[in-house]
Amino acid sequence: MQKHCTGSGGEKMNYNPISPEILAQLQEIVDTKNVLVALTERERYRNDETPGGPAGLPEVVVKPENTAAVAAVLQLSNHHRIPVTVRGQGTGLSGNAVPIHGGIVMSLEKMNKILEIDTANLLAVVEPGVVLLDFRAAVEELGLFYPADPGERSSCIGGNIGTNAGGMNGVKYGKTRDYVTGLEVVLASGAILELGGKTVKRSSGYELMHLIIGSEGTLAIVTRAILKLSPLPRKTISLYIPFDDLFAAARTVAALKRARMPLTAMEIMEQDAILLAEARLEQKMPYNQAPAYLLLRLDGEQEEELLTLAQEVGEHCLANGALDIFVGDTRPAQQKLWDARACLFEALKAHGTMEAADVALPCSQVPEYMYRMKAIGRKYGMTITSFGHAGDGNIHTWPLQGEMPEKEWAQKIPLVMHELFVTTRSLGGALSAEHGIGFTKKAYLPLFLEPAQLTLMKQIKQLFDPCQILNPGKIFDPK
Amino acid sequence: MQKHCTGSGGEKMNYNPISPEILAQLQEIVDTKNVLVALTERERYRNDETPGGPAGLPEVVVKPENTAAVAAVLQLSNHHRIPVTVRGQGTGLSGNAVPIHGGIVMSLEKMNKILEIDTANLLAVVEPGVVLLDFRAAVEELGLFYPADPGERSSCIGGNIGTNAGGMNGVKYGKTRDYVTGLEVVLASGAILELGGKTVKRSSGYELMHLIIGSEGTLAIVTRAILKLSPLPRKTISLYIPFDDLFAAARTVAALKRARMPLTAMEIMEQDAILLAEARLEQKMPYNQAPAYLLLRLDGEQEEELLTLAQEVGEHCLANGALDIFVGDTRPAQQKLWDARACLFEALKAHGTMEAADVALPCSQVPEYMYRMKAIGRKYGMTITSFGHAGDGNIHTWPLQGEMPEKEWAQKIPLVMHELFVTTRSLGGALSAEHGIGFTKKAYLPLFLEPAQLTLMKQIKQLFDPCQILNPGKIFDPK
Repeated sequence: MQKHCTGSGGEKMNYNPISPEILAQLQEIVDTKNVLVALTERERYRNDETPGGPAGLPEVVVKPENTAAVAAVLQLSNHHRIPVTVRGQGTGLSGNAVPIHGGIVMSLEKMNKILEIDTANLLAVVEPGVVLLDFRAAVEELGLFYPADPGERSSCIGGNIGTNAGGMNGVKYGKTRDYVTGLEVVLASGAILELGGKTVKRSSGYELMHLIIGSEGTLAIVTRAILKLSPLPRKTISLYIPFDDLFAAARTVAALKRARMPLTAMEIMEQDAILLAEARLEQKMPYNQAPAYLLLRLDGEQEEELLTLAQEVGEHCLANGALDIFVGDTRPAQQKLWDARACLFEALKAHGTMEAADVALPCSQVPEYMYRMKAIGRKYGMTITSFGHAGDGNIHTWPLQGEMPEKEWAQKIPLVMHELFVTTRSLGGALSAEHGIGFTKKAYLPLFLEPAQLTLMKQIKQLFDPCQILNPGKIFDPK
Repeated sequence: MQKHCTGSGGEKMNYNPISPEILAQLQEIVDTKNVLVALTERERYRNDETPGGPAGLPEVVVKPENTAAVAAVLQLSNHHRIPVTVRGQGTGLSGNAVPIHGGIVMSLEKMNKILEIDTANLLAVVEPGVVLLDFRAAVEELGLFYPADPGERSSCIGGNIGTNAGGMNGVKYGKTRDYVTGLEVVLASGAILELGGKTVKRSSGYELMHLIIGSEGTLAIVTRAILKLSPLPRKTISLYIPFDDLFAAARTVAALKRARMPLTAMEIMEQDAILLAEARLEQKMPYNQAPAYLLLRLDGEQEEELLTLAQEVGEHCLANGALDIFVGDTRPAQQKLWDARACLFEALKAHGTMEAADVALPCSQVPEYMYRMKAIGRKYGMTITSFGHAGDGNIHTWPLQGEMPEKEWAQKIPLVMHELFVTTRSLGGALSAEHGIGFTKKAYLPLFLEPAQLTLMKQIKQLFDPCQILNPGKIFDPK
């Protein structure tokens, strides 16, 4: 057994198997009940939600209950050179939490406590396994608001931090990064670091915290987070707006941005997604006959002011080709609209094979991207549908297999993805907005980042994790 | 002459002098008119605004006019191992831009163009030498707003990015980091990197951009920045509120936060600062007889709504011990109040010798910090005055020499600073909120950061700048 890594990073990754002695040590560290070895149990940790994504069987799954246990597992794994893939709810869409090198899956599902809601500082201290939906509900009871709202609400905070998830409210409220003021993290060596804290402003050395956010479990494992909260807006109004073409809907988003309408959320959706959502939820949307839709939300304190704004927003939409404006101002009506939006991924996925892109664009380039994305679909005889956070330039794009024969699909899909990403790059975009690079996007990263930048990132990886045990093979391959 | 560095970082820093050949090359790269060699000219680049701060005479000052010139100067300097201290307007308060190892001062004063104001995406592309005041004025003409508003408005964007400056509007709008979406930077090697871009959301590899922000010119030199803009608020109201004790003022800030009053700015000031500001500006404040003051600002779209809010804020203040509420609702009245706030540092500095602390605290700890800070002053028989951005926990703290004999001052000031920082640390605070560590605070950084964290930072420095040419001796000493 090769017990020590050289740390040079140049060598091929040779990981060691988990011997009975190491297993016994793991059982001691996290308690036997928190170590899964049975095949049927381990199989539930093979993959994540990535359509057609990779799979990898962990040799063992551990569920630490505290930071000390996380640190001890990492120290042991680092010493024996065993890969450790950290996992939250497994809702990632780039194969982020898939143990492609086997080894240990470290599931943080038991580190799911909200440790503190600090109403004086409008901050919360949470463990990484806290489920977003539970967290949002807990702070709302105190009249507070945690804005990050990805479509996947069963995701957990640790995963949100790992991919800098944003979601629907990003237009007004930003993304996860904007809400983190402090992290406790464990390095591959087992060292525990406190990065940041309850200060909302800081200029005290390099911001390692911001380096960890979005690093997908490849630099360190987050064991606690301090998150900013906002006051819960008293009122919200939602608008559901059909358009008779997708580009008109996209141009309307750009027009609303130019007009500086203070929207909270600006989602775009195509008809096929809406129809699938209706089938999945067994309920009708206010309208489903148009090819494209915007779903908008305003929030604020005064109902009257919001209604005036909604009126103004509606007029912009009509002037840009909206067919109608459906206003949701009650809570149930709005819930129904946003539930439909939130289920789109599941609805599409249940319907058949597809691929996922999660591009970020300068907002003004969204209409052009939509044109080109549709043209790529036509070129390859493939349906590419889309929905996403148009207001912050994040378009989730889904090539669908539909009736296409498997062989043709397998041959065409790499070409389609490549063209989508080349298009994204040419419009000044980024490869991923909030899903991360994980496993499925890493081949495309060199399209977006010059070699010197990738080299620096790999050197940073090497610095944090010289034995390459943390989520290896994600974002990029070892140097 | 030692031409190459080993890059191990363990050795003593031996920098090389600038030979006539190197000087000739510099003159070729940036043009002779942009190279200063005369002593009288170089002396203007010896120090920055740090009270009692360090000085260091550059051997030469270069003023590149574009990124290619910055890259060529760095490549040359790296090859010959010559220190390069980047400088904007020299308004730093921690000795950040002082060339303590001599060598080259690279002044970016000529890279001061606003390259684009992109009204479709609410973004601006600027060179680092753009002066903040000019930038804010330029975007305001288009109805847009760049919120960062440090007291020092003659600072430049590059410096603001280097220290993650925030200023008055931070309570509502955040700090510089929150407004940067992209950076062009030059590494010590001369390599030019594009980090980020016009996408406001991103999860595509490690965020090197966030590592550079706040790194005080020690990792790379910023040559272009893409900055977010907000719509310019139509109306603002300012409130000037005297209190008969400092702690009541501080507690009022905490009460306003608890009550979730949506304030834009929440400044706290002591009477001595107000009196000095009056003298400096030769104008009276609405009131100057109380020992402590809050200066608050609200902004928004509707005057009526703001007046209602201002009323509510005023009631909270009176309930917490405010002596009176002076409302500024015209532009000139507000300008006068904020000019007084903005001149406080200059007014204090002109008055006599002082030391600067720029601590960041959890907001709820500001009153406790104020108590302890005053107690430290009493213990050492020293006046310590303060003003700052109480609403985001950033208190600028100024021990004043006053009539204290030089010898006593020199003996006591290190003890006072040490106690202030130990207090800050014990309250969960950070060493600097927005001035950065620079030269004058680096001795205190180990009080705040555990060794493993400092080691990682030094390793990152080593990775980016193996020959240690970029602003050496700032934030920490070479490994």
